[in-house]
Amino acid sequence: MNDSLRIGLAGLGTVGTGVLDELADHGGLIADRCGRTVKVTAVSARTRSKDRGGHDLTGFQWFDDPAEMAQSDGIDVLVELIGGDEGPARACVEAALKAGKHVVTANKALLARHGVALAKLAEGAGVALNYEAAVAGAIPVIKTLRENLAGNAVTRVFGILNGTCNFILTKMENEGRDFADVLKEAQDLGYAEADPTFDIGGFDTAHKLVILTSLAFGTEVSLEDIFIEGIEDITLADIRNASSMGYKFKLLGVANRTEDGIEQRVHPALVRAGSPIADVGDAFNAVVVEGDFSSTLFLEGRGAGGHPTASSVVADICDIARGSRVPVFGLPADKLKPFRRAAMRAHAGGYYVALDMLDRPGELAGVAKAFADEGVSIESVIQRGPAMSRSKVGADIAPFVLITHDTLESAMRAALDKIEAQGHVASRPRMVRIERL
Amino acid sequence: MNDSLRIGLAGLGTVGTGVLDELADHGGLIADRCGRTVKVTAVSARTRSKDRGGHDLTGFQWFDDPAEMAQSDGIDVLVELIGGDEGPARACVEAALKAGKHVVTANKALLARHGVALAKLAEGAGVALNYEAAVAGAIPVIKTLRENLAGNAVTRVFGILNGTCNFILTKMENEGRDFADVLKEAQDLGYAEADPTFDIGGFDTAHKLVILTSLAFGTEVSLEDIFIEGIEDITLADIRNASSMGYKFKLLGVANRTEDGIEQRVHPALVRAGSPIADVGDAFNAVVVEGDFSSTLFLEGRGAGGHPTASSVVADICDIARGSRVPVFGLPADKLKPFRRAAMRAHAGGYYVALDMLDRPGELAGVAKAFADEGVSIESVIQRGPAMSRSKVGADIAPFVLITHDTLESAMRAALDKIEAQGHVASRPRMVRIERL
Repeated sequence: MNDSLRIGLAGLGTVGTGVLDELADHGGLIADRCGRTVKVTAVSARTRSKDRGGHDLTGFQWFDDPAEMAQSDGIDVLVELIGGDEGPARACVEAALKAGKHVVTANKALLARHGVALAKLAEGAGVALNYEAAVAGAIPVIKTLRENLAGNAVTRVFGILNGTCNFILTKMENEGRDFADVLKEAQDLGYAEADPTFDIGGFDTAHKLVILTSLAFGTEVSLEDIFIEGIEDITLADIRNASSMGYKFKLLGVANRTEDGIEQRVHPALVRAGSPIADVGDAFNAVVVEGDFSSTLFLEGRGAGGHPTASSVVADICDIARGSRVPVFGLPADKLKPFRRAAMRAHAGGYYVALDMLDRPGELAGVAKAFADEGVSIESVIQRGPAMSRSKVGADIAPFVLITHDTLESAMRAALDKIEAQGHVASRPRMVRIERL
Repeated sequence: MNDSLRIGLAGLGTVGTGVLDELADHGGLIADRCGRTVKVTAVSARTRSKDRGGHDLTGFQWFDDPAEMAQSDGIDVLVELIGGDEGPARACVEAALKAGKHVVTANKALLARHGVALAKLAEGAGVALNYEAAVAGAIPVIKTLRENLAGNAVTRVFGILNGTCNFILTKMENEGRDFADVLKEAQDLGYAEADPTFDIGGFDTAHKLVILTSLAFGTEVSLEDIFIEGIEDITLADIRNASSMGYKFKLLGVANRTEDGIEQRVHPALVRAGSPIADVGDAFNAVVVEGDFSSTLFLEGRGAGGHPTASSVVADICDIARGSRVPVFGLPADKLKPFRRAAMRAHAGGYYVALDMLDRPGELAGVAKAFADEGVSIESVIQRGPAMSRSKVGADIAPFVLITHDTLESAMRAALDKIEAQGHVASRPRMVRIERL
């Protein structure tokens, strides 16, 4: 136990070199805290010759194949920072667990797809599988759910889990700019990929959310049972309308327990201005957890970046060095319950609705009747005449925006279908869910 | 290891009964998470006959003396919820550690006074001493500092650690009420004691801060080396002035590393409106931690109350049940460095200053010269004529309020001493530090 803990580091991108930075800067502190030294003994990456932030790799054993490194006698812990839910990342993590090595990973996709199977492998081998860095970077959300809330029934966990989307929505609001314009800036800054679908479509958030869901509710990870909408259709007009009604737009991942099962959903949401989650700006992440004993916890910080992510990777390594072992998803894998999905149609909540209403006598009455027939009651309304419209609709169309009281999603969809079918609007009505805090 | 973990519970107030509630509600979940059952086998409190939230105590062994319970063969863990830095709390914790029992405590005063000695006892016996509930209730700040930031050099930790003070300041601002008026309401609600000095004087915050300091900087706990100012002199006029300049008043505990040592200070502070810490309302607590790798983390939640505090107590018990062992202050006790105190006179920062200036020609020039002579430069000023004054000063006195650029505290004190000595003001100038975020 007092021997060095030997790390095999797979992946030497920004996070991998961040880990090397942190072990170099704070190796003495870490040894004192853990009662033993932590040292990298082996590395694996795609290219051997590339510069790695000035780190000299010659002291480490080099492996072309991370799976080979994972089984090597020269390491105790595999740190997997390759990414991706298949290929070399999956191969090396499985190889390590089968060989009885501990694993630390920042790989959300791998856990979202294969979490339960990997948990079983880790348990079978009696080793740790830690992944604080896989969700929300430096924010201690995995440990909070897995350890600090061990004696709580969680009722809801939700958060801003994708910095790119939050950067875009914050810039749109603060600078009055269009989605496409800000997206381009995010791409130029390297915050968004050339193909931004994974971020703005909500898929990155979905990967992270399913991990939190499993920890929060003790259920098997299920990436199939998730409702996903991205932010690509949010307009500057929507953001301004919401703002004038006291709300802000955020892309949220939400998991909450209902009588019908668990809602697991990723979508743009309106949150009340002035609340902690509404004030999370730029590329920051934040998570809200509601436990029956803890009450509401709010955690905010950097969700990405080499050093913040490395901070969580190194913390996971330190836990292993001190001998701490916690079940992968907070419960032994065979105690995880199958995921029981609540239908989105049964979701109850408030809605923001934007209609491009035809500017003719009787249309408003028709719209109002459609809502009333479905039992949807309206909390507040903004109607802008054509001249005031900020959207690119013609002069014979009046933007009409409203917020509903809490209602069932099935009723909302029925009302909007009716409004469209009856020809009151020039385009498909848009609705955005309100997340109550 | 798969046997039940047997708890001796000392103290059956709101937190103690909260722990009984949580173990009753979630005993099965906790057993699944920990791989063993957790059960209370013994209890001790001042009065045996009192109702304990409906819990039947007849199944537990009763001890009049908690120190006797602490050494009993019938328990593995002492949970100390008595409170106080001496007397039965200290006696039973010491007895437990000496008898080789793990200890979980919510007792900030005990750790603030005797933390290092207790850490040595725990280490000597090879047992855990956990205290997540001692600072900020349900907020996972101890675990974040002790485990999640294990590989970081922390540069600053600060927070709102006393719910009573935050309740008072929030109410004063939101409802435009005087300090004394809101204090009375807090007392009526049971948020503040009949003698509120411990809370409003900053002493409760101080106890909590010194624990965070030790964890953050790896130094010995030192309650002597702390600067403390309470909120009792904050006026509604101050709060309104600050608000008009874009700041809010909070009672902060702050520990930050400087070239001269560590500043450990508790005082009212102005924080920029719109920042997460400024938006912490009512009786909530929040902590900000800045690590060199993690960057800034912000944690908010309930800092008090039976169930939120019990949530952290039970989490500490679960860590022990799973065999997790972390050094008490994050480092072995003999590696903790002596606390090196930075003098408050060397503190650098911005200041809010309120002067009851005599309304005569030349006074403003005199005040301005005093600041200039000490090298203090002014960022912004509010001067209210006598008619606009909200303070109870006479008509020949003009309230004059300003914010300085960053300067040394020694320069500020010299300037204010000069302003008072030269007779420009009708009363002692008041200054409040600005905490930069």
